[in-house]
Amino acid sequence: MTDQTDTIARLDAFLDRTADERLGDYVEFLRIPSIGTLSEHDADTEAAARFLAERLERWGLEHVEVSPTGGHPIVYADWLHAEGAPTVLVYGHYDVQPVDPLDLWVRPPFDPRIEDGRIFARGAADDKGQVHLHAWAARAWLEMEGRLPINVRYVFEGEEESGSTHFDGWLRDNRHRLSADLAVISDTGFFEGNHPAITVGLRGLTYLQVDVTGPDVDLHSGTWGGNVQNPANALARIIAALRNDDGTVAVPSFYDEVRPITPEVHAQFQRLPLDEAEFAAGIGVPELFGEAGFLPLERRGARPTLDVNGLWGGFQGEGSKTIIPAHAHAKISCRLVADMDPERTFERVRDAILAVPVPGVRVDVRPLNHGMWSLVDIGHPAVAAAATCLREVFGEEPYYLYEGGSIPAGASFGTILGLPVALVGFTNPDDQAHAPNESMVLANYEGGARTVVRYWQALADLPR
Amino acid sequence: MTDQTDTIARLDAFLDRTADERLGDYVEFLRIPSIGTLSEHDADTEAAARFLAERLERWGLEHVEVSPTGGHPIVYADWLHAEGAPTVLVYGHYDVQPVDPLDLWVRPPFDPRIEDGRIFARGAADDKGQVHLHAWAARAWLEMEGRLPINVRYVFEGEEESGSTHFDGWLRDNRHRLSADLAVISDTGFFEGNHPAITVGLRGLTYLQVDVTGPDVDLHSGTWGGNVQNPANALARIIAALRNDDGTVAVPSFYDEVRPITPEVHAQFQRLPLDEAEFAAGIGVPELFGEAGFLPLERRGARPTLDVNGLWGGFQGEGSKTIIPAHAHAKISCRLVADMDPERTFERVRDAILAVPVPGVRVDVRPLNHGMWSLVDIGHPAVAAAATCLREVFGEEPYYLYEGGSIPAGASFGTILGLPVALVGFTNPDDQAHAPNESMVLANYEGGARTVVRYWQALADLPR
Repeated sequence: MTDQTDTIARLDAFLDRTADERLGDYVEFLRIPSIGTLSEHDADTEAAARFLAERLERWGLEHVEVSPTGGHPIVYADWLHAEGAPTVLVYGHYDVQPVDPLDLWVRPPFDPRIEDGRIFARGAADDKGQVHLHAWAARAWLEMEGRLPINVRYVFEGEEESGSTHFDGWLRDNRHRLSADLAVISDTGFFEGNHPAITVGLRGLTYLQVDVTGPDVDLHSGTWGGNVQNPANALARIIAALRNDDGTVAVPSFYDEVRPITPEVHAQFQRLPLDEAEFAAGIGVPELFGEAGFLPLERRGARPTLDVNGLWGGFQGEGSKTIIPAHAHAKISCRLVADMDPERTFERVRDAILAVPVPGVRVDVRPLNHGMWSLVDIGHPAVAAAATCLREVFGEEPYYLYEGGSIPAGASFGTILGLPVALVGFTNPDDQAHAPNESMVLANYEGGARTVVRYWQALADLPR
Repeated sequence: MTDQTDTIARLDAFLDRTADERLGDYVEFLRIPSIGTLSEHDADTEAAARFLAERLERWGLEHVEVSPTGGHPIVYADWLHAEGAPTVLVYGHYDVQPVDPLDLWVRPPFDPRIEDGRIFARGAADDKGQVHLHAWAARAWLEMEGRLPINVRYVFEGEEESGSTHFDGWLRDNRHRLSADLAVISDTGFFEGNHPAITVGLRGLTYLQVDVTGPDVDLHSGTWGGNVQNPANALARIIAALRNDDGTVAVPSFYDEVRPITPEVHAQFQRLPLDEAEFAAGIGVPELFGEAGFLPLERRGARPTLDVNGLWGGFQGEGSKTIIPAHAHAKISCRLVADMDPERTFERVRDAILAVPVPGVRVDVRPLNHGMWSLVDIGHPAVAAAATCLREVFGEEPYYLYEGGSIPAGASFGTILGLPVALVGFTNPDDQAHAPNESMVLANYEGGARTVVRYWQALADLPR
């Protein structure tokens, strides 16, 4: 292990002495306004892809390619000469969010400024900084050692902020050349207070629409009230039937496959500091509301939900209009956790909806969207290795996070490539990703590069 | 009684020989496009008022006045020389509905055409025809007999189609000069199949809005799902709590003051022919839905309801947006029957809403609109007298109708002037009031004039 300790020391020294050059390069990357969602920035988004590909090529990665997708390209590169060592697929994205409202930016979004140990610019944290530190970690290894200790494939997307429209298709088309043992996604971050963290779980989704249809047209509520089923009342009856008053989901068998929270996992949740009152006050609600017997962060990351995302029917204007609406509608979605099946959950919710006794109207339920959850065990060796590296670089025992939302790529690596997914990212939750005045803490950026350098070695050292 | 029979015969003969002149006058009245809701027709609406006032004045009515209201004027006239006889207040309106969609009219809406025993024009039935036949009934009496057998006050409104905005204020301001024994409203019609009918009941209304407020802004349903009460789910829970699955209202004490349907009233409802399947098919619903144990027309006219008129919250667009809405809203109204109190009903519904256990959100309930029901006993002498006249003219035993909706004026005569209200109108339900190709059956119009001529005499003959 002494050899390896020496190696890491040499890589750290390289990163130390190239810090200014790296920062300059990072600034240059951030100057490219690669707002992937806006077609007037298509040339900029393409330029950011080329910037990245040019660095990867120059620093010794192979098979570098700006791979067309029908939308913005995917930048692919690999280095596959670590025979017998594991192969990691690294994911990040070079497109950035739009910048409006521009007048809320204190500094121009594409003219990076460094203040208070942060670099301020759109994309600094989400996700150009994280993509860039990966490229530099590879450079450190290749320039100092002429090799990487493991095999790495880079897949950097340009449509993450616009729904990853072409990502799954590209993954499917290129599946034959994407074999790997693990996917590492660097598009997440640390826990509140800038504590290092590894995201081990993402929730899945099933999203559906309910359409309740009654009379041909809106009816006069005087003439018809008392003789027809009201689609809006029926819709409310249906929605109410799907949840119990304690917030649990009332759909039969909904929880059947939900993976229990083990004492070990519960202990990790208990480590996470959270002030419930502050948590609630931050969004302006008088109190949290959720399943009894679970911590708020367990309810966010390790328990499924059923929420109305929208509902409408009849008269929505000022004042009063006395109608019985001809139809009423709701969008309803469930967040899913291991080991739920999105399709099966949809069927169960649909069946529960159709079982509600609302004679006199037609009820239709159709799926709008499905997404798979992702969960890697806290005890997985690749997670343990990441934890060791974060501890070494940041001097703190990392937290393990279960995120409540989804990252499309996270589910895709699991469902399309069958890979376990570890989300190792370095942003601070106060970085204002997606908002004006986005920034990245430079210590996180630099520590991120050093963590990745170590992580590749740690994965190489895992017993096989 | 022979004198009176002679009198009626003379009046009938007058109406017979003036039929052409009357029809010409009616056509002239219908040519005035008095669309009260459209300001570009303000001069026309005023012209219709003046047309009417000019006739009333010319034919011998007194105190004729085009009385300003702040909106369209009220045409007032009276004849009060029948000492010791009852005083009747006659209500109708000279404004008409808009005509769009114009392309669905087979004939121009303000160029009346006579075909198949009907006169086609906007306002022919609703309500110019009925106002006009009242004026001609008065003319017949005054021209042939030099008197009316009772005292009559005419109150013809110009804002009925735009919500009777200034009507209650005018009634209150003029209460001192509107003393009467009975209000007769001629703005309704016959039963399906053109069977003569008297409307004895109108339902009242209490209309409210529920606002459910949760977080400050729409939340990401992944990040927050499981920890906050969802305002849209909470709203559905509230609405569902207000009704039972059998369609009855679940609000405590809601039915406490509802006047039972007596065997006599029930017998009148049973007389009314109704094909339930046809009734349902007419509005495109698979089946009727309502309180068990009541006839459909009892549920329409003699039982209260609770209906959602509109609801909304969160995302209503195409596809899926994963939010927990910051707020959700519903408009809810109850149709009320004798002897319910609109204010008290509002309070009971509000209390039931606020009693639903939905922690974590704020629930506000506010009243939007109240309206009193109106009900005159089927056995009331003024109703019996009207029935006799209808039977005599149309050769059929009339039906007694309980309407499901409200006529603002109907409630106002009860609540402001304290008068019993009989709704004696002559339109056929297939007249297409409010729709393209409105018409009036000429036999109904002519029979209406003859019925009114008789009705004034019948009221004069009532024992006091």
